[in-house]
Amino acid sequence: MKAALISIGDELLIGQTINTNAAWLGKELSFRGISVEISWTISDQPAEITSAIDFLSEKADLIILTGGLGPTKDDLTKHTLTQYFQTELEIVPEVLGRIETFFAKRKRPMLEVNVQQAALPKSCTILHNYHGTACGMWFQKGETIVISLPGVPYEMKGIMNDEVFPRLNQRFTLPNIYYETLMTQGIGESFLAEQIAEWEDKVRAKGFGLAYLPSPGIVKLRLSSKRGDRDKEEIQSLLQEIKDQMPKHAYHLGEMTLSEYLGKLLLHQGLKIGTVESCTGGHIAELLVQIPGSSRYYEGSIVAYSYEEKEKLLEVDHHTLQTKGAVSEEVIVQMAEKGREVLGVDVCVATSGIAGPDGGTDEKPVGTVWIAVATENTTFARVFQFGDNRERNIHTTALTAMNLVRCVLEGISFEKK
Amino acid sequence: MKAALISIGDELLIGQTINTNAAWLGKELSFRGISVEISWTISDQPAEITSAIDFLSEKADLIILTGGLGPTKDDLTKHTLTQYFQTELEIVPEVLGRIETFFAKRKRPMLEVNVQQAALPKSCTILHNYHGTACGMWFQKGETIVISLPGVPYEMKGIMNDEVFPRLNQRFTLPNIYYETLMTQGIGESFLAEQIAEWEDKVRAKGFGLAYLPSPGIVKLRLSSKRGDRDKEEIQSLLQEIKDQMPKHAYHLGEMTLSEYLGKLLLHQGLKIGTVESCTGGHIAELLVQIPGSSRYYEGSIVAYSYEEKEKLLEVDHHTLQTKGAVSEEVIVQMAEKGREVLGVDVCVATSGIAGPDGGTDEKPVGTVWIAVATENTTFARVFQFGDNRERNIHTTALTAMNLVRCVLEGISFEKK
Repeated sequence: MKAALISIGDELLIGQTINTNAAWLGKELSFRGISVEISWTISDQPAEITSAIDFLSEKADLIILTGGLGPTKDDLTKHTLTQYFQTELEIVPEVLGRIETFFAKRKRPMLEVNVQQAALPKSCTILHNYHGTACGMWFQKGETIVISLPGVPYEMKGIMNDEVFPRLNQRFTLPNIYYETLMTQGIGESFLAEQIAEWEDKVRAKGFGLAYLPSPGIVKLRLSSKRGDRDKEEIQSLLQEIKDQMPKHAYHLGEMTLSEYLGKLLLHQGLKIGTVESCTGGHIAELLVQIPGSSRYYEGSIVAYSYEEKEKLLEVDHHTLQTKGAVSEEVIVQMAEKGREVLGVDVCVATSGIAGPDGGTDEKPVGTVWIAVATENTTFARVFQFGDNRERNIHTTALTAMNLVRCVLEGISFEKK
Repeated sequence: MKAALISIGDELLIGQTINTNAAWLGKELSFRGISVEISWTISDQPAEITSAIDFLSEKADLIILTGGLGPTKDDLTKHTLTQYFQTELEIVPEVLGRIETFFAKRKRPMLEVNVQQAALPKSCTILHNYHGTACGMWFQKGETIVISLPGVPYEMKGIMNDEVFPRLNQRFTLPNIYYETLMTQGIGESFLAEQIAEWEDKVRAKGFGLAYLPSPGIVKLRLSSKRGDRDKEEIQSLLQEIKDQMPKHAYHLGEMTLSEYLGKLLLHQGLKIGTVESCTGGHIAELLVQIPGSSRYYEGSIVAYSYEEKEKLLEVDHHTLQTKGAVSEEVIVQMAEKGREVLGVDVCVATSGIAGPDGGTDEKPVGTVWIAVATENTTFARVFQFGDNRERNIHTTALTAMNLVRCVLEGISFEKK
């Protein structure tokens, strides 16, 4: 099965928005054995939309359009498709009801443009949107399926998962792919590849697919089989091999964020956590709180960004701060230990570092970060050297801090390099 | 001048790499008045490359191909272009010399594949790459310029800046697109469109382009002219009209995040800020800290997620907490005021709400959020009703809180609905 993508919107062409939708669709479709042959980005103009469909329907069995379905005047896709497929718009009561509920829930007034979002082409199959007000549409053009979806990423993804993939699975015999993911933190893609080179040769020789899926601070290792569940046990035991080999980095077999994993671990051990943050500025707390139900194990945090707050809120020793600096082993240990007391928690993790772009010295260049974990029995501190990008330093520090907490709680020795 | 982009590479089609090159080129070209009409992503196959050039040279005066110029076997672009333009490859001594220096500097061995990177089509203008080993190529196909560049982002950008833009400026009088952006917070795309409908008709009648660029919590309004700087004043004053009309929502004329704007405002007023967060779990702090140099106005935060921490760290009154609940006007006012004292800051913003998915009641459904801003003179509190998505509630609350601080500091009245 061959697919073509059409992303609609001037904001994409002029680079104001980066096209993450095409990447997500490419990943999800090719993973399901649907080959994405070509991807176009075009402007929101009827002639562009229709000529793209004309051209690509010669090449693809499935065309997915994203964007151009919002309520405002510059979103023309729906009208263009209605004309193209020689049908007409008609208010769909079920959709109108859902839009009304959507606005009522949010106590926001519903406008005429929103009512018009319930007007959909008669000849299409409606793809319901449970995350927003613009429905998706499924048309048939000869042998080719033409699907139009809103451009807002989480709405597009929701409709793909809720409505499109189940229908595609029903209509076509897509290859029966089984896969499992191993989550790793703190090891780069190339370094990971080097460490598991032999294992990789082995699994490839068995005909399994292996993919490295990197995102900042995290690399997912995905092992897949085209023989479906029949290879489930073998795939799981192959990944478990790697997990056993690198316990400091591999934290979970199966897709799971580090904050979710840590949450489960804290719940299981009956521990409460707090954070004391300097360079991460609350980012660890935020990642923990993103998990629903985190109030069962997360108590609170102190972000002590300035020297003054470190003394005032945490009673970090003035002399130590002045002589060793905030980015030092002595201070980070005090931050974690005092934080544990002040917050009254079982585990406290603290961060202090130079996120950049300024503030670095020869001795402590940008990217130098101290992290400490204090528990009832022990305080563990370690220094890291990250890069020179502020945003990535903050994020990487937060992930590394959470992974350190995990290692401490799981009794994994994490001796200094 | 019309441009078309061709991004080459399977890693883009299968979504392993997000196409940031197309976004960068779109931004840089349209900024220079070159209109990007269409952008294709294709796989690294000769037939795909030649048919893309055939098709797009009918539509564009300038085609820029990126990718497919590395030394590895799957990079076929150079050979394909050599055949397509009926020329032949020839080692260019100057380029070979630079490649040799490149490897010598890095003390890495130079391989035969690298020598071959100095072999370039005779009929092209060579675009030198001072950041890597793969040169760019400039061909002429009738009236259309066809440029091929490596896909590594910093190499591609380097060649564009060093070699392509100077040549384009020399050869063409480029039309001059001018645009300006108005940043708004807390007003949905549809509601904004309805509020400015008359204004929108007016600006469209004048021939200006208008785009709504929504992202969670923020809508950018972009107004553009194809007559360049000549319309600068008019565009700015048209956007200023809207800014004056909705001071609670429109926070800045020109592209700028809310945290950056707030940072400048705090610096300008010589004020220090702190945050006291419950439902946002440190997210406001994190957004403030993302801005380099935020230590000049950001002091620290307390994340008091549990009832206990609210009492312990902020001395919120036990009785008030028990009778009114944490999500109440009485508690949020105490949080902001006590936070201001404890942190020792000029301005303190506090949040407390039910982020969801659980924890809602009939009286306080999921999405109910109290926000308060305390300054030396006043404390202002307001309740909001957001949606049912936890992550978005947290993010929207953080943006709304920052916007409330802005309104308070700018003396914009924000009376209760």
